[in-house]
Amino acid sequence: MMRRGFQAAATLSRLRALPGAPRILPILNPTAAFGSSIDSRISRFCPEKTDFKDYALPNASWCPDMLSLYQEFLEKTKTDGWIKLPSFASNREHIQGLKLPTGLAVTSDNSDCRIITRSLQVEGQGYEHAIFFNPSEKKSVCLFQPGPYLEGAPGFAHGGSLATMMDETFSKTAYLAGEGLFTLSLSIRFKNLIPVGSLAVDKIEDQKLYMSCITQTRDQKTVYAKSSGVFLQLQLEQE
Amino acid sequence: MMRRGFQAAATLSRLRALPGAPRILPILNPTAAFGSSIDSRISRFCPEKTDFKDYALPNASWCPDMLSLYQEFLEKTKTDGWIKLPSFASNREHIQGLKLPTGLAVTSDNSDCRIITRSLQVEGQGYEHAIFFNPSEKKSVCLFQPGPYLEGAPGFAHGGSLATMMDETFSKTAYLAGEGLFTLSLSIRFKNLIPVGSLAVDKIEDQKLYMSCITQTRDQKTVYAKSSGVFLQLQLEQE
Repeated sequence: MMRRGFQAAATLSRLRALPGAPRILPILNPTAAFGSSIDSRISRFCPEKTDFKDYALPNASWCPDMLSLYQEFLEKTKTDGWIKLPSFASNREHIQGLKLPTGLAVTSDNSDCRIITRSLQVEGQGYEHAIFFNPSEKKSVCLFQPGPYLEGAPGFAHGGSLATMMDETFSKTAYLAGEGLFTLSLSIRFKNLIPVGSLAVDKIEDQKLYMSCITQTRDQKTVYAKSSGVFLQLQLEQE
Repeated sequence: MMRRGFQAAATLSRLRALPGAPRILPILNPTAAFGSSIDSRISRFCPEKTDFKDYALPNASWCPDMLSLYQEFLEKTKTDGWIKLPSFASNREHIQGLKLPTGLAVTSDNSDCRIITRSLQVEGQGYEHAIFFNPSEKKSVCLFQPGPYLEGAPGFAHGGSLATMMDETFSKTAYLAGEGLFTLSLSIRFKNLIPVGSLAVDKIEDQKLYMSCITQTRDQKTVYAKSSGVFLQLQLEQE
């Protein structure tokens, strides 16, 4: 578990600090930072009771493929150890109870803010998605249906929307797997354009030194993109 | 100019075609595809008269740094050969007059769609940005102010929003410089988090075999990210 800390330090030694912005610190003791176990991170991230709305639920905009694959993975949460991650309007909801480094602390909850993947509030317009995580295998699956407000080429999702969805799934997976929290690097090779309104399936795996992702159609006959990401562990104190 | 065509063909030989989706073809004659000159592409991309609203104009949400740097580059459009690129609600407006390959053609303009970078319509909420292009040097500058609806960590822009802004500036620059249109690969190294509401300056340069980008504060004292992209030329016929 030390490898990430060393890698982060090597990279960060070349950083300049931004006044007022977070100083990103490599962590040398992941256990202390991320809780005693993967279970405690999951229970923190997926509260059994919460007043926050979970947006990772089926709605009328979902295409049949998205709906049926969602149901398939929901079944796996009952039998195969998979966990459905809730998706709130802001990351502030997720990090409650974690004391972040100076500069990253949430100073006010009154401002009108949203996580990028839940900023378009009309169903079907933006990032329709649901993420499932498998703790024992340290891998995730993200069901992603880009809407018509994420266009690049007419009728197709902007490459940036896929990059965003990958980064989001990477970072949630990295946090829960204990591998880190912030993205240090992201490399994407685009293979085919994703039609707006259709399902793309991101499969994320922990590859020891990085996370890898393949995005494809449900039948796996068309690859949309492949990517990899490296993450940075932060010194997070638990309250 | 053949180098990109060869590179694209090498990559695409491993692709599977998606039924109904565009077949991405490498181009062997960029001059025929992109018009006779960089000037014709610019005049097509930046029409002198148009009914479409240009969103790359100052509004009340812009921070002082963004406003003053915008004015600085606007002066350069009068004296130093820089061009301000208009930014419409959809890419459909930009590609009018270009006959796209089968599968990429715009079959209907009636649907409610938006380019991802103009999908959040409340001023200041999303991707406030303006792109300036220098034809003789084949480089661009993008002034980018991420809003509170693009959050990742509380108070900071999501990595995906920066990836989106880079990809968007890369592809517009690549098109105008005659280097391509679609992103084949994108690699980003994140250095510091961008505070929501502050200015990030993307500087894009044509590096012959790829485009490179550095994103930093206006005073260049803090680097937010560095990235590079490779592009694919398409067989575009002119009407």
